[in-house]
Amino acid sequence: MIRTRFADLETPKLLLSEPVFERNLARMRDRAAALGVALRPHMKTAKSIMAAQRVGAERITVSTLKEAEYFAAAGFKDILYAIGIAPGKLAHAASIRRRGVDLTLILDSPEAATAAAAAARDLDQSLPFLIEIDSDGHRAGVRPDDPMLIEIAARLDPTWSPLRGVMTHAGGSYDCRTPAALIAMAEQERQAVVRSAERLRDAGHPAPVVSVGSTPTALSARELNGVTELRAGVYMMFDLVMAGLGVCTLEDIALSVLTTVIGHQTSKNWIIVDAGWMALSRDHGTAAQDLDQGYGLVCTEDGEVLHDLIVVSANQEHGVIARRDGGPLGPDAYPLGARLRILPNHACATAAQHDAYQLLDAHGEIRAVWPRMNGW
Amino acid sequence: MIRTRFADLETPKLLLSEPVFERNLARMRDRAAALGVALRPHMKTAKSIMAAQRVGAERITVSTLKEAEYFAAAGFKDILYAIGIAPGKLAHAASIRRRGVDLTLILDSPEAATAAAAAARDLDQSLPFLIEIDSDGHRAGVRPDDPMLIEIAARLDPTWSPLRGVMTHAGGSYDCRTPAALIAMAEQERQAVVRSAERLRDAGHPAPVVSVGSTPTALSARELNGVTELRAGVYMMFDLVMAGLGVCTLEDIALSVLTTVIGHQTSKNWIIVDAGWMALSRDHGTAAQDLDQGYGLVCTEDGEVLHDLIVVSANQEHGVIARRDGGPLGPDAYPLGARLRILPNHACATAAQHDAYQLLDAHGEIRAVWPRMNGW
Repeated sequence: MIRTRFADLETPKLLLSEPVFERNLARMRDRAAALGVALRPHMKTAKSIMAAQRVGAERITVSTLKEAEYFAAAGFKDILYAIGIAPGKLAHAASIRRRGVDLTLILDSPEAATAAAAAARDLDQSLPFLIEIDSDGHRAGVRPDDPMLIEIAARLDPTWSPLRGVMTHAGGSYDCRTPAALIAMAEQERQAVVRSAERLRDAGHPAPVVSVGSTPTALSARELNGVTELRAGVYMMFDLVMAGLGVCTLEDIALSVLTTVIGHQTSKNWIIVDAGWMALSRDHGTAAQDLDQGYGLVCTEDGEVLHDLIVVSANQEHGVIARRDGGPLGPDAYPLGARLRILPNHACATAAQHDAYQLLDAHGEIRAVWPRMNGW
Repeated sequence: MIRTRFADLETPKLLLSEPVFERNLARMRDRAAALGVALRPHMKTAKSIMAAQRVGAERITVSTLKEAEYFAAAGFKDILYAIGIAPGKLAHAASIRRRGVDLTLILDSPEAATAAAAAARDLDQSLPFLIEIDSDGHRAGVRPDDPMLIEIAARLDPTWSPLRGVMTHAGGSYDCRTPAALIAMAEQERQAVVRSAERLRDAGHPAPVVSVGSTPTALSARELNGVTELRAGVYMMFDLVMAGLGVCTLEDIALSVLTTVIGHQTSKNWIIVDAGWMALSRDHGTAAQDLDQGYGLVCTEDGEVLHDLIVVSANQEHGVIARRDGGPLGPDAYPLGARLRILPNHACATAAQHDAYQLLDAHGEIRAVWPRMNGW
């Protein structure tokens, strides 16, 4: 990948501010230390070896087996694959463990536990597991008080599919609307896994790992007693959804998309730019928040936020920028060829549309190009 | 890329039905022939050389300069880049023309025309242009009756930035709700470019190319008198938005995402699968139609449509499938490890999340793996 000058970048391009990224990493490191838990960063947002090396964690979380292989090849050997394993992927997971990677898997049903124990024996390769706990009713996992929790543990084989503990993801935190609600959600998340681990131990099963994770709850938890590790990913970049939740400011958003003005519809007070949904993603996560940011909040080329301008609509390679009130933009404010930056609603979704980060230093110049991976 | 058996595909995977794809190609070829216009297929959906070779067109349309280079390297030499050119990309475009590709560009303002003529002279490389016409008020382009149309033509240089004609994209057709509205929109699109070409010719400017294009209008136009070429892309794959518009049936959708059941939330009547928004995209284009298909309509592994099941929510690597009415799914209907297919809302967006198509023959077996490109 050729490094070019910032002024010569062909748009659209994905920018990552190095000072903001580093500050975000330090904030979560400090947070985990203050809470007395190990940090296991989730690489599903960054998906970049160079970013992971900056994070500096010995243990990481991934969202696909391809991610596990990608990071393992770069030397990361303690990896949690934090999506319920499909039975058809157990052989793939075993092949990764066989290469010396301590890959941990998750599951949330007796059927999955039976399949896992049988597969591990057949493959002659042990596969360690966490049981996924449902702490907020938003997605997968078994409820902490469900009798199925103990049944799952009983179906795992201590030799071939050893139980390592429990994990949960309080994705419901994305729907919280106040700091108090976030604090309560973090405590609910903590109690769900601590209670689950206690039930397992009371039934004679090991549960050394008690893992929680979501950026909003990680930054809101008052204490994490009984928890051993914290997973989070979007905190490295932050985004408009996180700012809308109040867990970061706009100045904490390290990720943006550089774009160029390619035209205007003067009668409509529209600026047309070359960043459409292909560059920004179709994520409209702020639509449900108090301040709808459209498909992104607009900044100057240098990153100064233009609070009144958002991407009001997006086609594949066209973005339409307008004032929130639809009013006039002022004469010659954003002429043909001018460049702007767009802050993303959802860092994971926007980054996934690109194959590299242009890493910008404190002076706004390109310091490095960090490739990123996608796919399965 | 290793070809595997269909039964052994690791999910999620992007599937393309070869017989349906071929039928869709033939339909649009026949349509263009019947309308008496040349077909210039838009490769922004397929983004695959192997797909483009099946289309068999001598001329193509692209949505990025990287696409132009990708297809040029495979022998496509007559290419329209159908996004208003940013001044900063003119040198890149010139470098592509210098390699023997007849690349045509578009613009829609006097400022862009001045910049283009100057750049072409400076670069010592002629750059031919179409003027983009706004036929429906939905995005870019100059209105057919705008005095600016003639000013743009006057600012182009017949030697360095020759005018080749006009083009429009009636993206407003996606908002039509009846066949009559689609027919009217196609006629509005036709009249806009024919009128614009006439005005240019009356003012002494050449306009041999009169180009229209959108899949819904292409399939709805009663006649295209005065039009010389037709651009369309999504017709190769079709999708739920097109089916909702009535321009195709569900059986015409060639694209789907293969996924695996990784869990259940029985009390909620949810099936959890391993295709989230990363595999399906965040496009929810059917939300504004009569039948909201969520993040996709569910089919059996073999492609039989399960009309009652949709993806009701999507996280990064999790999809939640439920009945439209939220009702119970029946005992053991979709057990752990079962595979399903998801029909996409928007083929362009879903395909963009993947790096290859698994091409399935009439028997549902994998016939080839077609790589696809992304990015800029």
